[in-house]
Amino acid sequence: MGPHPAVAAIRLAVRRVLHDILTEQTAHRTAGHAPHERPSPPLVLVACSGGADSVALASALAFEAPKLGIRAGGITVDHGLQPGSELRAEEVVLRLRGLGLDPVESVAVTVGRGGGPEAAARDARYTALDAIAERHGATAVLLGHTRDDQAETVLLGLARGSGIRSLSGMAAVSGADGRYRRPFLHLDRQTARKACMAQSLPVWDDPHNTDPSYTRSRLRHEGLPALEKALGKGVVEALARTAQLSRDDADALDAWAGRAEAAVRDASGLLECAKLYALPPAVRRRILRRAAIEAGAPAGSLFARHIEEVDRLITGWRGQGAINLPGKVVAQRQGGRLVIRQG
Amino acid sequence: MGPHPAVAAIRLAVRRVLHDILTEQTAHRTAGHAPHERPSPPLVLVACSGGADSVALASALAFEAPKLGIRAGGITVDHGLQPGSELRAEEVVLRLRGLGLDPVESVAVTVGRGGGPEAAARDARYTALDAIAERHGATAVLLGHTRDDQAETVLLGLARGSGIRSLSGMAAVSGADGRYRRPFLHLDRQTARKACMAQSLPVWDDPHNTDPSYTRSRLRHEGLPALEKALGKGVVEALARTAQLSRDDADALDAWAGRAEAAVRDASGLLECAKLYALPPAVRRRILRRAAIEAGAPAGSLFARHIEEVDRLITGWRGQGAINLPGKVVAQRQGGRLVIRQG
Repeated sequence: MGPHPAVAAIRLAVRRVLHDILTEQTAHRTAGHAPHERPSPPLVLVACSGGADSVALASALAFEAPKLGIRAGGITVDHGLQPGSELRAEEVVLRLRGLGLDPVESVAVTVGRGGGPEAAARDARYTALDAIAERHGATAVLLGHTRDDQAETVLLGLARGSGIRSLSGMAAVSGADGRYRRPFLHLDRQTARKACMAQSLPVWDDPHNTDPSYTRSRLRHEGLPALEKALGKGVVEALARTAQLSRDDADALDAWAGRAEAAVRDASGLLECAKLYALPPAVRRRILRRAAIEAGAPAGSLFARHIEEVDRLITGWRGQGAINLPGKVVAQRQGGRLVIRQG
Repeated sequence: MGPHPAVAAIRLAVRRVLHDILTEQTAHRTAGHAPHERPSPPLVLVACSGGADSVALASALAFEAPKLGIRAGGITVDHGLQPGSELRAEEVVLRLRGLGLDPVESVAVTVGRGGGPEAAARDARYTALDAIAERHGATAVLLGHTRDDQAETVLLGLARGSGIRSLSGMAAVSGADGRYRRPFLHLDRQTARKACMAQSLPVWDDPHNTDPSYTRSRLRHEGLPALEKALGKGVVEALARTAQLSRDDADALDAWAGRAEAAVRDASGLLECAKLYALPPAVRRRILRRAAIEAGAPAGSLFARHIEEVDRLITGWRGQGAINLPGKVVAQRQGGRLVIRQG
């Protein structure tokens, strides 16, 4: 008798990612190192909060890694946002060790206030994970985000109304050298939970996940269910597929804008309005956005309406004055050239 | 004292569109006709259901058109889906005439069953509007869709999960020769309703709009409000902006795919796998989709997962057999070429 179907599903998802990691490592070694050098077994870490998704992920990593000659370790991050969080972190450490992971580490972080509570916690978490991964020389860090998390991320991006890049959710591979991997991005949350139950693994339900003062929690418990009721059960899957398609589209358009940008600059590096005008709006606006960021405008404060206003210097020129952008960046048209710089 | 702000808003929106129509007509005439030929005044029709949006639109057209030397007429479509619908259509005709529109016409259509009740009603409606516009030689037909309708359309597209084209909602200009115009696409539904009230124009509330057996109605009354509660009041605006950005992006990528397609075909017109492989996934998948449709696959039945499977003949070739697509179209790889044809 094989494992429970949910357990089989989480293991398959992790096995695929571990295979990718090994394949890439081999390619990397062949390219860069002497072939007779005996490589040490790679280390893959799992980031685990103690919740069902990441406990399921840890269990699957513990099961699959040894079969592929991979060392498996774990990290839990104590955000210090709830009383007793350090005790919980210690409990997660014990559970990860119980699964056979080694090394296992708990790290306490201080969450700042920048960009709202969720963004601040995320920033602190990734900084800590980066540091630990580097200290241990880990090849990869696995994250437990599921298809449901992806659907929520797409809706959060949709609410920004800032275009398809913000609809593209989380990448399956991200970070420096593709450090972060999300094996469960195509798996639903329910499967992870079932896999924990089937393996009798206790899980912890983060009260933040049901706290309606968090946008993501409101989305999870009210927004998405209402959307499913109106549009049908396939909404989560449709949102996740939208993320993938949007990501590919945004990548292609960014590449186009990168190539086109060189062609629309004059000898002194200024953007030529006539050449910008000839480009499709989607490509032109990406070039304008890149130029504004390059001049010092913070990407997070630069909205679609800013870029639209700059675009009207090209497409609706009637002698407008300089346009103020975030970060004290100023855009103006001068003698058929677009000048974007910090004022 | 000027008009009520809502009335000013609807009139401004219509005035802008009428200006566009006149500008395009002048350009068209200069290009094609003898300059001394005296043109007859253009006719612009409004499609009016009797609901607040299209009644507001009709009132603004009646007010603005004469000032620009444009003739203004109206059409109401009787879908025959509710008892007494023919009486209501006659009532709308009387109201449109009361606004000073001429010609005004009511047309009864038979709604088929293809693609669900909403799609069938839409098909019947546009067929009738096309015929009437042509019979009267109308330059344009104005439609009362608001920003709220646009937001709903984006969510409906999102639920399909078929990529950014389906997120791009309704176009401000569409149909043959840009016949259909949507002046209220940036205006909210509340403004249209207020404008009717301020002008003491009675409006009719279509019971279909509150019938929970219609997807759009469920979305309007449950899905969107829940999403606004979770994500904040700006959701409708964000969705409408997403539509515009997605449309521009989809247009640019379609143009790229169109150019690239010619370059990846061999002398006999077959698609070369190696050249397809070198393209960005977003461009390659668009070419594959176009090729499948060209071979006879119905666009509406061709989903992202079909294209993904065909794409694996290029990116994950391991000797797979032929892939069956909708419309009895078959895709297979033969000697480094991709052959897509009706089997």
